[in-house]
Amino acid sequence: MKGTILYGPRDVRFENRPDPEISKPTDAIIRISAACVCGSDLWPYRGIEPVKKPLMMGHEYVGVVEEVGSAVKNIKKGDFVVGSFCISDNTCEICRSGYQSRCVNGEFVSGTIGTQAEFARIPFADGTLVATSDRPSGDLIPSLLAASDVLGTGWFAADAACAGPGKTVAVVGDGAVGLLGVLSAKQMGAERIILMSRHEDRQKLGREFGATDIVTERGDEAVAQIKEMTNGLGAHSTVEAVGTQESMMQAIHSTRAGGYVGFVGVTHGVSIPGSDLFMSEVHLLGGPAPVRRYLPELIDLIVNGEINPGKVFDQTLPLPRVAEGYKAMDERRAIKTLLMPA
Amino acid sequence: MKGTILYGPRDVRFENRPDPEISKPTDAIIRISAACVCGSDLWPYRGIEPVKKPLMMGHEYVGVVEEVGSAVKNIKKGDFVVGSFCISDNTCEICRSGYQSRCVNGEFVSGTIGTQAEFARIPFADGTLVATSDRPSGDLIPSLLAASDVLGTGWFAADAACAGPGKTVAVVGDGAVGLLGVLSAKQMGAERIILMSRHEDRQKLGREFGATDIVTERGDEAVAQIKEMTNGLGAHSTVEAVGTQESMMQAIHSTRAGGYVGFVGVTHGVSIPGSDLFMSEVHLLGGPAPVRRYLPELIDLIVNGEINPGKVFDQTLPLPRVAEGYKAMDERRAIKTLLMPA
Repeated sequence: MKGTILYGPRDVRFENRPDPEISKPTDAIIRISAACVCGSDLWPYRGIEPVKKPLMMGHEYVGVVEEVGSAVKNIKKGDFVVGSFCISDNTCEICRSGYQSRCVNGEFVSGTIGTQAEFARIPFADGTLVATSDRPSGDLIPSLLAASDVLGTGWFAADAACAGPGKTVAVVGDGAVGLLGVLSAKQMGAERIILMSRHEDRQKLGREFGATDIVTERGDEAVAQIKEMTNGLGAHSTVEAVGTQESMMQAIHSTRAGGYVGFVGVTHGVSIPGSDLFMSEVHLLGGPAPVRRYLPELIDLIVNGEINPGKVFDQTLPLPRVAEGYKAMDERRAIKTLLMPA
Repeated sequence: MKGTILYGPRDVRFENRPDPEISKPTDAIIRISAACVCGSDLWPYRGIEPVKKPLMMGHEYVGVVEEVGSAVKNIKKGDFVVGSFCISDNTCEICRSGYQSRCVNGEFVSGTIGTQAEFARIPFADGTLVATSDRPSGDLIPSLLAASDVLGTGWFAADAACAGPGKTVAVVGDGAVGLLGVLSAKQMGAERIILMSRHEDRQKLGREFGATDIVTERGDEAVAQIKEMTNGLGAHSTVEAVGTQESMMQAIHSTRAGGYVGFVGVTHGVSIPGSDLFMSEVHLLGGPAPVRRYLPELIDLIVNGEINPGKVFDQTLPLPRVAEGYKAMDERRAIKTLLMPA
């Protein structure tokens, strides 16, 4: 089969790789129906994360089950499945507490498995994949794919930020995750959703997803703006979806005392001053999203037409042209690139 | 009247200060029945926090109301009151959400008011003080005084750490706050309470307060020990009651993914690596404890004899000898020094 390999900064290739095989009884092999490029793929692509060995790229995926190992019970050949970007057994104590992204037997799909490919071997298939009840129509594919990470991650951020009825939610970051943080906050019933964005196309999509206000300032100026909009108090809930020092501090400072920050931007070089956090007195929770926890609910919402997160994909390419997708996202010509089998 | 003033490192004096007077209709004047020295008083005493101007010391207090302003409704002359170390109106949006320590009209008692004194003016008396229903007997005074900060702070940390039934709680720090974090976790129903301590007298009191296990290691070794005791997962809940880089990271690393860290040690030079927090995926909440939120409940527990936090005081001095108390705590000869009127 063919798959995507990153050899070094800006050197991404679609080339032959060994066909995946069942190696453990809990594995499944899936034929990828759709994959995409993630903002986090750009960290190694840009050389900000060092590429020590060739990386099998891609961790967002939907597909059809081709084969299952002898111990797999909940998934069968022919099922259409949505999977999390984190492998999880979904039975350990950490999984059962809802943190499947930190499963004691967990691993990341990115780097070793890689779903920007024709096929993929998914370990712990029962604990990682969720089958839809029917084969979904083609128009649902982008949204179901989004559930795999970018929606699940925005959802986790909004959940960690305790978005809900009566709440003012601020969203730092207008990338795909930030925008789906807006959608998630809206779905959770937030009263007011302030998106921090300076890109007109993203503002537009943000408003479509439920943003009630846009703040174009950054850093301290953005914080001042949020405070002014909230009686000087700050937001109840803030979603951080960038991962830089500025965005993290902007998120913390935009939040009122006793409020909640959900951070999901993969942190790079971020250092949080303890005294700042002490005096801000906000709840802070972040990390890789436990997408598996949310998948059943998200799939239902999508299949029932209640949310349409697939709108974040503004470019579609055939999988063999994956490198063009990286380039377009790197150059900010695309918010998020969908990859379909050739 | 006389009160305690810190002029510079290790220069603490008990001397004449102007008698406090009602300056706003929401003020009360109280005659201090007991005060004490706080671990946080040692930061400026040791010169770790610069002393830019003379500081009126003391922020833990119980007392009898001498006079109230015309707008005070809930407190009257002659009442015995317990107050928070943070002034709060208890009516603003932040107070109503339970974060009275970050009241929009708030201020710290320490530095400007200072309760290591004969009398004190308490602003926003209705929102800061809680009266006991009867004049408490003398043996309850130390425990009621503890509620004012050190117990309230340990309680907040345990609450922020979600201590409760079935939970394993780790406590970093065996000072008075850490020890009362143990008591709080016990009272909240925690199943297992692991106190990190290398001082025999403090271990003993910790066990009396409810600690089931003692870890004498520090840093990474302590973390390894906690992991070993918890199936490799870490504690569900961790109380951080020191405020150093080592203690903060020890607390975060001792906690399982999805677990909770409540940090109340006043952070000094602490910097939390974002990537570390991201991959730890723990809930983090800390800051000045909103003692006022807990005071009614804590007073009830004390008056009903259910908890006896006053045991943390292992030295009692007449107020005029306050400087000896600072010295004893600085030299770790005392865990916590109680000050009684001469």
